[in-house]
Amino acid sequence: MTGTAQIGVTGLAVMGRNLARNFARHGYTVAVHNRTAARTRALVDEFGDEGSFVPAETPQEFVAALERPRRLLVMVKAGAPTDEVIDEFAPLLDEGDIVIDGGNAHFADTRRREAALRERGIHFVGTGVSGGEEGALHGPSIMPGGSAEAYRAVGPMLETISAHVDGPDGAPCCTHIGADGAGHFVKMVHNGIEYADMQLIGEAYDLLRGVAGLEPGRIAEIFRRWNSGRLDSYLIEITADILTHTDAATGRPFVDIVADRAEQKGTGRWTVQTALDLGVPVPGIAEAVFARSLSGHTDLRAAARPLPGPAASALGGRDADGFAEQVEHALYASKIVSYAQGWNMIQAGADAYGWEIDLGAVASIWRGGCIIRAAFLDRIRGAYSADPALPSLLADPQFAKEIGDAQPSWRTVVIAAARHGVPAPGFSAALAYYDALRAERLPAALTQAQRDYFGAHTYRRTDREGVFHTRWSEDRSEAEV
Amino acid sequence: MTGTAQIGVTGLAVMGRNLARNFARHGYTVAVHNRTAARTRALVDEFGDEGSFVPAETPQEFVAALERPRRLLVMVKAGAPTDEVIDEFAPLLDEGDIVIDGGNAHFADTRRREAALRERGIHFVGTGVSGGEEGALHGPSIMPGGSAEAYRAVGPMLETISAHVDGPDGAPCCTHIGADGAGHFVKMVHNGIEYADMQLIGEAYDLLRGVAGLEPGRIAEIFRRWNSGRLDSYLIEITADILTHTDAATGRPFVDIVADRAEQKGTGRWTVQTALDLGVPVPGIAEAVFARSLSGHTDLRAAARPLPGPAASALGGRDADGFAEQVEHALYASKIVSYAQGWNMIQAGADAYGWEIDLGAVASIWRGGCIIRAAFLDRIRGAYSADPALPSLLADPQFAKEIGDAQPSWRTVVIAAARHGVPAPGFSAALAYYDALRAERLPAALTQAQRDYFGAHTYRRTDREGVFHTRWSEDRSEAEV
Repeated sequence: MTGTAQIGVTGLAVMGRNLARNFARHGYTVAVHNRTAARTRALVDEFGDEGSFVPAETPQEFVAALERPRRLLVMVKAGAPTDEVIDEFAPLLDEGDIVIDGGNAHFADTRRREAALRERGIHFVGTGVSGGEEGALHGPSIMPGGSAEAYRAVGPMLETISAHVDGPDGAPCCTHIGADGAGHFVKMVHNGIEYADMQLIGEAYDLLRGVAGLEPGRIAEIFRRWNSGRLDSYLIEITADILTHTDAATGRPFVDIVADRAEQKGTGRWTVQTALDLGVPVPGIAEAVFARSLSGHTDLRAAARPLPGPAASALGGRDADGFAEQVEHALYASKIVSYAQGWNMIQAGADAYGWEIDLGAVASIWRGGCIIRAAFLDRIRGAYSADPALPSLLADPQFAKEIGDAQPSWRTVVIAAARHGVPAPGFSAALAYYDALRAERLPAALTQAQRDYFGAHTYRRTDREGVFHTRWSEDRSEAEV
Repeated sequence: MTGTAQIGVTGLAVMGRNLARNFARHGYTVAVHNRTAARTRALVDEFGDEGSFVPAETPQEFVAALERPRRLLVMVKAGAPTDEVIDEFAPLLDEGDIVIDGGNAHFADTRRREAALRERGIHFVGTGVSGGEEGALHGPSIMPGGSAEAYRAVGPMLETISAHVDGPDGAPCCTHIGADGAGHFVKMVHNGIEYADMQLIGEAYDLLRGVAGLEPGRIAEIFRRWNSGRLDSYLIEITADILTHTDAATGRPFVDIVADRAEQKGTGRWTVQTALDLGVPVPGIAEAVFARSLSGHTDLRAAARPLPGPAASALGGRDADGFAEQVEHALYASKIVSYAQGWNMIQAGADAYGWEIDLGAVASIWRGGCIIRAAFLDRIRGAYSADPALPSLLADPQFAKEIGDAQPSWRTVVIAAARHGVPAPGFSAALAYYDALRAERLPAALTQAQRDYFGAHTYRRTDREGVFHTRWSEDRSEAEV
C-alpha cells in the first residue's frame, strides 16, 4: 500500500509546523505527525485550509501515508531525541526511503547516522535550515547533505520551499552541499559567521556610543544609511530597527533596558572547536563566542568593574560623523576577514571529510532566507565563480582592493578603541589576522626556536631543506635529524 | 611473592627513562620494563650505577618485582597505547595496587580510566608531568590526580623526585590536585598558559623589531634585563639566550634562519576546546593556538602577502628605549590576563567535575620544574593565599594595582601595533578582555536583542526580574514569557 503524501514531517514544534505549512502552501500533500497527537490536530485545525495535510496519529499511520520512496522530514531536538526518532521509524521503512534531519545536528552525528542508515539501504539527508520561524514558513536557506541519489529525490521539493533570491537571478537558496555531514557542517559554519557578524555589529554600535558619543537613535540612522551601501544585510537592518525602538515601560531606548548578557545555543562553540581540530584559524568567530560567554559572567564582571580605564572623552560633533565613516570601513574590513575565515574552514572540512563543496554555491544559497543574508554574499559567489581555487577571500582582487582601501580607517578605529577603553575584540582580532597573514616574517620563528630549546622539538630552516635541532645545553652546534 | 622495588616504570622512552633514573638517584629501587627489552637493557647498562634498578623482560616479571601495594608508572604515548598497557597490566594486579599515568592524557580519558580501574579495586593516578627531558631527570613539576588514598601511597615519592623551590621555602613542586582527571586537567591548562606566554613573548620581540627597529642582539639585552625584574621566568631567560645565538652556517642571527612556522602537539587546542565547553573565555590562549596554526598556512600567507599595510617607519634611538619599557608593561599586563583566564578555567573545571582544587597550591607547584616556572607564580600563590575565593586574579589588590599602572603603556603598545601593521593578537585580545570585563555595559545587550528579534530567544531586563519577548513583527509590545 502506498500513500499519497509526497513528504511527511514528524516533530511539529514551531520549526516543523512552519516547514510543513510551507510544503503544503506549495501544493505538496504533507503527512504530519507528532509524538503528542494534540499538536498534529492543532496544526490541521488551524492551518488545514492552507493546503493538503494528512494527519497521522501513529508512526505506522504516518509511514503508510507517504508515497514511495518515502520522504520523512524529522524536526525534533538535536541529540538523543533525533536518534530516538530514527530508531523508531527506521524499522518501518524500506530500501530507498529517505530520512531528512532538519534539526541543528552536529555534523559528526550526521556522519554517524548517515553511515548507519546506509547500511540498511535507507538514505539520510542531514540538512541545515536557517531563517528561524519566519524563514521556515516563507522560505529558509536550506543546506542538505547526503548522497547525490537522495538529493535527486528530495532536492527539487526543498528548492521549491526555500527562499529565492530577488531579481532576475531568482535562484533558490538550496543546493546539494556534499556527502553525509556536509550540510550540517556548512550550517555550523554559517552560525559561526553569524556570531562574528553580530559581535562586529555590537562593537560598531559600542564604539559609536563610547568613542563618538552618539545616542541610539542617531546610531540607528547611521546603520540605516550603511544598510543602503555595501553593508546591506538583514542583520544591519534589524539593528537599525532595534536601536530606534523605545521601551514602552520606561521611555528609554530599548537597547538600554536589555540586560547585557548574550546567550548562545552551542553552534558557535562547535564551529571554533571544529576549526581547532582542523587547524584553521578562526579568531573572529572565537572572539564572538568568548564575548558572549564573558558577558554572562556576572561575578567576574562585578569583581573587575573597579579596574581603571583611560580618561579619553567622547568625540561629538563633526569628529563623530567622521569617526562613523571610519567605523563603516572597520566593520566592512572585519567582516571580509571573518567570512574569509569561514570559507577557509569550509574548504578545510571538505578536504578532511572528502566533500566536494562548491564554495561559490554556498555563498549563493546564503543570499536569501538565512540570518546572514546580505548583498555581500553575491560578491563572494562572484569571487569563487571567477576563481574556484581561491585560497582566501583576501586574495580576490576586488576584496583585496576594498580591504586595502579600508585599512587606514580600520586601524584608526582599533586605535580609538584601545585609547578610549572600549572593548573591540572582534575588530582587533580581525586586524591582527590581516597583519599576521600578510607579514613577511612571523615571530613563530622564535616560538619554534623556544620549542626546540626546551623540548628538542626541532625546527626547519629558511635557507635549506631538512629538520634540525640545536644542542642548546651542550655546544650549541646544529644537528640535522 | 612480593618484590622489592618501590616503584616500576614501564615505557622507557626518554621521559620514562629519565623519571626512572630520577627515582633511582633518590634511593628508590626501581623496576624497569619496556615493550622491546633492548631499551630496558640499555638503561641498566648505561645508568645502572646511578641507583638500584630491577630490569624486567615480561609484564609478569615486572609486576613480580614490585612491593605491595604495587606502584606502576606508565610512560607511553597518550591515547590508544595507554589503554593497551592498562589492559595488559590490569589482570596482573591486585586490589589496592596503583597505576600512575604520567603521559599527556586528555583529562576525559583519565576520568574514564580511573572509573574503570576503580571498579576493579585498582587505583589510577593520572599525573601531569611538566619540564621536558631535563625536568624528568632533575625534578619536574608533578600534578597528580586520583583518590586521596592513592596519593598517600605515591605522593611522598613523587614529591621527592619533583623540583623544589629555591630558597628557604624549599617546597616540592608536587601536590595532590584532586580526584580522577584533575591532574591532567590542570596540566592541560598549564600548557594552554604556556602557549599564551610564548605568543606574548613572540609579540613583544616582534614589536621591538618591527616598531622599535631593534636587532635581535639588542632585544636579547632587553629580555635579559626584564628577566631580572617582575618578568623573571624560564621562558624569558631562554628567549634572551636564543636571541643572542648566531647561526654558525650563515653568521646571521639564529632567529632569522628558523622557518617561521610554529608547530603544536594539541594540548593548547584541548585547552581552548574545553574552555568553550565550560563557558570560560580564554581568548589569550585561543589567539596563541591560532597564531601557531596561521603560521603554518604557507599557501594562505603567500596569497595574502601582497595586501597593503601602513607606511609607519620604525622608531629607533631614544624612542626605541622608551617603547621597550612600554612593551614590558604590555607583556606583564597581558600575562596577568592570560593567567587570570587560566585560573578561572581551573576553577570552572573544578566546579564542573567536583574537584576540590587548591588554586594557590597549583601556583605553588608551578614555581619550579615546569616550562612556565617564574617568580610571578609565587605572587599568584600569595593572591589565593590571601583570598582563596578570589573571583579573578584581576580582583587581587596587588595585581589590580599593577595592571592599572600598566594600562596606559599597554594601550600605547596595542596602538603602535595597529599603527605599524605588526600583528599583536595576544596583546590586543588581552586588552579587549580587560576592557570588556571592567565595562559598565556591554553591547551584548544589542546581541541579545537581535536574538530576540530574529529567533524569539527572549531577553532579561535591567530594571526588573523575568524573561521577556518583544513582538517585533507585530505591534512591538512586550510579553513576559
